Amino acid sequence: MTQLVAMLTDFGTADIYVGVMKAVIHGICPQAQLIDLTHQIQPQNIRQGAFALMNAYRYFPPGTIFVVVVDPGVGSARRPVAVCAGGYTFVAPDNGVLSYALSELENYKAVEINNPNYRLPRVSHSFHGRDIFSPAAAYLAAGVQIEELGAPLEVLSPFPLPQLQVGEYVVHGEVLHIDHFGNLITSIGDCEWATPDEIVLTPRFGEEKQPLRIDRSAVVKVNERAFQGIVQTYSETDPGAWLAMIGSSGFLELAINQGNCALRLGAVIGDPVKVRRG
Amino acid sequence: MTQLVAMLTDFGTADIYVGVMKAVIHGICPQAQLIDLTHQIQPQNIRQGAFALMNAYRYFPPGTIFVVVVDPGVGSARRPVAVCAGGYTFVAPDNGVLSYALSELENYKAVEINNPNYRLPRVSHSFHGRDIFSPAAAYLAAGVQIEELGAPLEVLSPFPLPQLQVGEYVVHGEVLHIDHFGNLITSIGDCEWATPDEIVLTPRFGEEKQPLRIDRSAVVKVNERAFQGIVQTYSETDPGAWLAMIGSSGFLELAINQGNCALRLGAVIGDPVKVRRG
Amino acid sequence: MTQLVAMLTDFGTADIYVGVMKAVIHGICPQAQLIDLTHQIQPQNIRQGAFALMNAYRYFPPGTIFVVVVDPGVGSARRPVAVCAGGYTFVAPDNGVLSYALSELENYKAVEINNPNYRLPRVSHSFHGRDIFSPAAAYLAAGVQIEELGAPLEVLSPFPLPQLQVGEYVVHGEVLHIDHFGNLITSIGDCEWATPDEIVLTPRFGEEKQPLRIDRSAVVKVNERAFQGIVQTYSETDPGAWLAMIGSSGFLELAINQGNCALRLGAVIGDPVKVRRG
Repeated sequence: MTQLVAMLTDFGTADIYVGVMKAVIHGICPQAQLIDLTHQIQPQNIRQGAFALMNAYRYFPPGTIFVVVVDPGVGSARRPVAVCAGGYTFVAPDNGVLSYALSELENYKAVEINNPNYRLPRVSHSFHGRDIFSPAAAYLAAGVQIEELGAPLEVLSPFPLPQLQVGEYVVHGEVLHIDHFGNLITSIGDCEWATPDEIVLTPRFGEEKQPLRIDRSAVVKVNERAFQGIVQTYSETDPGAWLAMIGSSGFLELAINQGNCALRLGAVIGDPVKVRRG
Repeated sequence: MTQLVAMLTDFGTADIYVGVMKAVIHGICPQAQLIDLTHQIQPQNIRQGAFALMNAYRYFPPGTIFVVVVDPGVGSARRPVAVCAGGYTFVAPDNGVLSYALSELENYKAVEINNPNYRLPRVSHSFHGRDIFSPAAAYLAAGVQIEELGAPLEVLSPFPLPQLQVGEYVVHGEVLHIDHFGNLITSIGDCEWATPDEIVLTPRFGEEKQPLRIDRSAVVKVNERAFQGIVQTYSETDPGAWLAMIGSSGFLELAINQGNCALRLGAVIGDPVKVRRG
Repeated sequence: MTQLVAMLTDFGTADIYVGVMKAVIHGICPQAQLIDLTHQIQPQNIRQGAFALMNAYRYFPPGTIFVVVVDPGVGSARRPVAVCAGGYTFVAPDNGVLSYALSELENYKAVEINNPNYRLPRVSHSFHGRDIFSPAAAYLAAGVQIEELGAPLEVLSPFPLPQLQVGEYVVHGEVLHIDHFGNLITSIGDCEWATPDEIVLTPRFGEEKQPLRIDRSAVVKVNERAFQGIVQTYSETDPGAWLAMIGSSGFLELAINQGNCALRLGAVIGDPVKVRRG
């Protein structure tokens, strides 16, 4: 029986960091199957890492163990944690990087990873991915129970969820991710086409959780650029066209057909997005 | 028994897209072994993807399943297809990305992937790599027969092969790929040294398929730069030297020894290349 | 039983080169488990590759086979070699890329890979990673003994170890690697905190191997920038602070807390580093 271990870090792929984590995992649990989610989270960008995890975890089979290392506080007092929720197990620093995923999973069980038997003999001050998080994930993959890793935790550290304000005429959100194609993925979701003319938005974030409707003629604005209307597919537009559509994770996305929207707009993560519901 | 699944996309590695595809494949077929061919095809560059696949597939063991997703038409009417040829199976959009590889394989068998049992329950408008192509490849890896995926197709959509014109004195080709080292890989192949002084070119593309000879003193020209003569190995030249040689896939390549030829020439994919046979 | 094969190259991940190497390995030894150490060594930078390998190999389980291809002399007379040492096996060009790792392992056994039975039938002039090194590693992974690959070698080609000069007041070293975060990793190691006020440096390189002490108030200088004192963890400093600390491999590192030190200093591999011991 193989055991899936998924990895999500900001370590990049130019260094040996990720390869060494994999070596440590394989040394402890040779039957682990490793999947790279991505290692190119922007350095220390906890919010981007949290969003990536939230959009990915549900596609993995139950029982998958996630090692999530975006860790600006490495070496400080922030706790390493292991968390079971929704049939998955997450190993990460307790700095909010799990918070978006956990916000939609109920009844999580968490421990602080502090049992010295389940880490490398010598723990560095700057690479807990290798010394603490990978060994913990590997021991879990090898069958160790989460309770053995350390003391139970009642709550994890609080972390603000993304911006999403739903008003009568206007929805306010923010850019949460810029992908490889230069598409801007926003906090405005979960969106779904209800009719050919209307989207239903069921807010994943924010105070207001009631579904509301957005007309396909709605105007989306980011960095002074207005996107007129929302399309269902790229193929409704010509190459070079600016377009708003529902992305593959259910969030509103801004793009240029076969172009790079982020570069053209100079957009960065955190930029405000406004939808006039039409 | 493991089943090899090779992946070739333009999704990059900075996002979760590829990791999520792998999660979907593992969920359906846990015994699949995944190999990344590359995910850094230039966004929507079908020709570059087709060339990469043509040069790679033959090194995989028979039975390998290839998931190839370079898909500017995602969400449009272009068909998702599965194709058996030469002992391999290819899953891809029917947009030409398989055409270079299939041009040298006989008797392909193709189906349109339209059986809803072999895709994710909810298909997005922008990420068929996750929703259609990965599930299809995973079901094939798990033993499903290609005929079950959908209706047979007589022919795939036509797609132009690369430029290669063989004349009495001059061969005209084009740059098909620029690699990580900045080397320009051209459409001029298949080349092989016949004697220490002569190359035999057996055209892979174009109308004329008769082998012809090129002298080692031939002059190669790209973007106004003339390369004088063709060498057998880098080691015949000094660091910094401009050189033409036969690359590892049998195509004529332009390079700078320990330098970046593409940057120095400002070359891009599609630039014309001319060889005066000497 | 799986057999771990770790890969370290300068091939990048944008081309099919690494994927094709994996295909060749899987074709010969389907039970091989592949781990990417990194493929983003700077093109032809043997020293950087040697340093990466030295810092990584010890984290792999005994028996791991390493394929190391940083190979500016491909096609020349430089020998392909296989080397057993410290319970590991290394397959590489004999150009120094193994030298840093081997400098700390005793009693290596080496052969020149020249048995034509253990390479691809057709060997190109420019891609021995595919044609020679991957097959050799795969046959070793499948159980072939190193002696079968070719003739024994008494010694490998000499290669200079990194710069590290230890004086009474000053330690001279050099930048050996710049990582994804922009941290400068230097040749000054192995370092360890002996007391809260003092580091013990046990030189890994250079003539002088006696341990010596460095005060935590020591001044580190690189490219005219002076780093005042050495910290134990990032968390002792504020975001944006310049800092010197012991990195995760035991070498002195220069960094900016949540910033990119290399970009700010314009530092490159090989830049001299000076520590006034304080």
